[in-house]
Amino acid sequence: MKINELKDHFNEEIEIQGFVENIRDLQWVQFVIVRDKTGKVQITIEKSEEQNNEMVELVSSMTLESTVKIKGKVLESPKVKLNGMEVVPSQIEVTSCSLPELPLNIKDKDGAEIDTRLDYRFLDLRNEYNATIFKVQSEMVKVMREFLYSKDFMEIHTPKLIGAASESGSEVFEVKYFDRKAYLAQSPQFYKQMAMASGFERIFEVGPVYRAENSNTSRHTTEFTGFDLEFSYINSYEDVMDLEEELLTHMLRHIHETYGEQIKSTYGQDVIVPEGKFPRITLANLYVELEKRYGYKTDDVLDLTTEAERLAYKYAMEEYHSEFIFVTDYPSEKRAFYHMRKNGVPQGYDLIWRGVEITTGAQREHRYDVLVKQAEEKGLKKDVEFYLEFFKYGCPPHGGFGLGVDRLTMLLLGLPSLKESMFIFRGPNRLNP
Amino acid sequence: MKINELKDHFNEEIEIQGFVENIRDLQWVQFVIVRDKTGKVQITIEKSEEQNNEMVELVSSMTLESTVKIKGKVLESPKVKLNGMEVVPSQIEVTSCSLPELPLNIKDKDGAEIDTRLDYRFLDLRNEYNATIFKVQSEMVKVMREFLYSKDFMEIHTPKLIGAASESGSEVFEVKYFDRKAYLAQSPQFYKQMAMASGFERIFEVGPVYRAENSNTSRHTTEFTGFDLEFSYINSYEDVMDLEEELLTHMLRHIHETYGEQIKSTYGQDVIVPEGKFPRITLANLYVELEKRYGYKTDDVLDLTTEAERLAYKYAMEEYHSEFIFVTDYPSEKRAFYHMRKNGVPQGYDLIWRGVEITTGAQREHRYDVLVKQAEEKGLKKDVEFYLEFFKYGCPPHGGFGLGVDRLTMLLLGLPSLKESMFIFRGPNRLNP
Repeated sequence: MKINELKDHFNEEIEIQGFVENIRDLQWVQFVIVRDKTGKVQITIEKSEEQNNEMVELVSSMTLESTVKIKGKVLESPKVKLNGMEVVPSQIEVTSCSLPELPLNIKDKDGAEIDTRLDYRFLDLRNEYNATIFKVQSEMVKVMREFLYSKDFMEIHTPKLIGAASESGSEVFEVKYFDRKAYLAQSPQFYKQMAMASGFERIFEVGPVYRAENSNTSRHTTEFTGFDLEFSYINSYEDVMDLEEELLTHMLRHIHETYGEQIKSTYGQDVIVPEGKFPRITLANLYVELEKRYGYKTDDVLDLTTEAERLAYKYAMEEYHSEFIFVTDYPSEKRAFYHMRKNGVPQGYDLIWRGVEITTGAQREHRYDVLVKQAEEKGLKKDVEFYLEFFKYGCPPHGGFGLGVDRLTMLLLGLPSLKESMFIFRGPNRLNP
Repeated sequence: MKINELKDHFNEEIEIQGFVENIRDLQWVQFVIVRDKTGKVQITIEKSEEQNNEMVELVSSMTLESTVKIKGKVLESPKVKLNGMEVVPSQIEVTSCSLPELPLNIKDKDGAEIDTRLDYRFLDLRNEYNATIFKVQSEMVKVMREFLYSKDFMEIHTPKLIGAASESGSEVFEVKYFDRKAYLAQSPQFYKQMAMASGFERIFEVGPVYRAENSNTSRHTTEFTGFDLEFSYINSYEDVMDLEEELLTHMLRHIHETYGEQIKSTYGQDVIVPEGKFPRITLANLYVELEKRYGYKTDDVLDLTTEAERLAYKYAMEEYHSEFIFVTDYPSEKRAFYHMRKNGVPQGYDLIWRGVEITTGAQREHRYDVLVKQAEEKGLKKDVEFYLEFFKYGCPPHGGFGLGVDRLTMLLLGLPSLKESMFIFRGPNRLNP
């Protein structure tokens, strides 16, 4: 039985299992707090009762964070602060023993440096603040998938071992593959598009994505979970923005309903369900607004600077009461060769949420001859030859986007770093545990 | 509009998009068959009508497998064999052009050698037989996830880049990781168990799994999609078998309802929903039965041979009318060090479906001191030190299993090889596309 079910079983014989959260060994009585995923409950052992002697001895030698199986009766006890109930045990079994000293204080989520926390991530995640992050993340991915199933998308699984270093060869991990080299995919981009050439029409994938970037910031990691989709027979990248808008609104509405209060109380964050469409602005116009409103100027106007992302959020909130803003019309030198262009302008966008870029999306160039030209322009034709093949025998017009599950989680809960929003973080200096 | 929706829109103006499946250019009329994911429809262009001149010319120069956008009126036409309807177009737009000659005949699923098919997988998958495999696979994974959500499981994403070559170091891919080496995980085993030590209680993961095995058989691949789960507070590995039984029965019941007829007509396979529990037999007793019934003898009685797997299926069908059979009580020298043992017998099983092993499952050893001893026995202690740490500070009793999504698909549809049941196959000689 789970601890949160006990309240429906007062005066019944029950069995629970969990971690030993706390022990108070007093003169006449012992109190043990047991914790499972659903809650905590007090176990009360009266020392005066002879049949308890064995249990009393066991509890005296028990270490915190050991796991126990408890049989006994659950009683309503208004005097007990913890949920107004207690379990009077008839049997306690220690199912695993913890060492007496833990390497970090798991009751305080900031009880140790982040590196110590990551070294002992298996203990760090026993802290409720940290564990809840992954309940929310699981729910978030679940409802995003559900939304896509309801829109006739199917899920595919594409290989991460690839034969050629694609897209941007410099930041790719190399794998010893028998007597040759393979590489780890930096995104499922090419294979998502292959599914379009195959007539799959609407697909998504949730899987690992690799970036061999030797940088140690709160936003960088070498391996993360990508949520990618691609769909056919679109008319323009407006269709892609519309779908993303709908997907994120659906997700936030559901998370608001299921975890809204808990997220507010645990992380101090409001889960805000977008109302209506997200504002859309060209990069050039955004920079005009940022200068006009906030006096912000930069020489780097071909792309969004980190500061400009932050200010774009401010602008979107002030002008549209929106946490999201789509930025369009980037110059082609800053966009991938496979983005479709119209009068030279890439038909894609970045989406900014709470001041951070969460997506690049676009209509893709699906016409072989145009695509080859764009690949040549970027000096990539040889590297992407296998990919260009996909477009030789007809391919529907299509587009798509990708989201980082970990980044989305970080922003949703207001966490300071990906190190907190990943079950197990990977960085240039971190391959363990 | 999708082609399967046209029947509800007779005499209305519609727009459809799809691939050009066929063209018949006759003296007085042109017929174009257009295909989308939902079906096919005939487009009829009368040459005698002057306003059609431009379209007639376009169709004359059109290549098969190009993609088109068609506007026009859909008519009920009982004389048309294909669904008794036709579209009379007012406008045809070619959205992408195919080269006139395809490198393989996509209308015949066996129209080319498997290697040619894999080289041109993006075309191979336009064949309905091949494409449907992945609709079924997506549905299969979807309902398996749904089942687990309903049982309070959550999904996690564990890293595939790992710091130490674990489990069986010989068959692991090596990655150049900045100035050191990393490896690709052969299973999420250790991290699933870490989640148990963290108190997550019930988790699953769907993600890539890597095996650096240099073998080219129908059952081997270097990268596949694993479906893995782990759960806490079990009493024995019987609980693990019970859960897997329930999961697979749920999945097969759902697939029977949604795709049963299509699987029968396309692949000639019955989707059989298990009734009741799967038979369970010890390895030793199984070999006794196989000898008694089929005269089968082997020196390799410490494990199941491929032939014994096949005969175990025969036995299960004859004796229990079951496609599934659990085989238990393998000797400890054949089982991983982390399987719990009772009187020396590993508390785990293999599950055989249709003559092929699809799962290894077990209760895990969660007690630090016992686990260390078992790792030492196998000479693995140093390699798995980071993993042993997980058990030092208490860990609930737990167990779990893993399934291969691609293997399950292969068996469900009666396909001859993983090359058919994987969206993109990876083998020692195959890294492309």
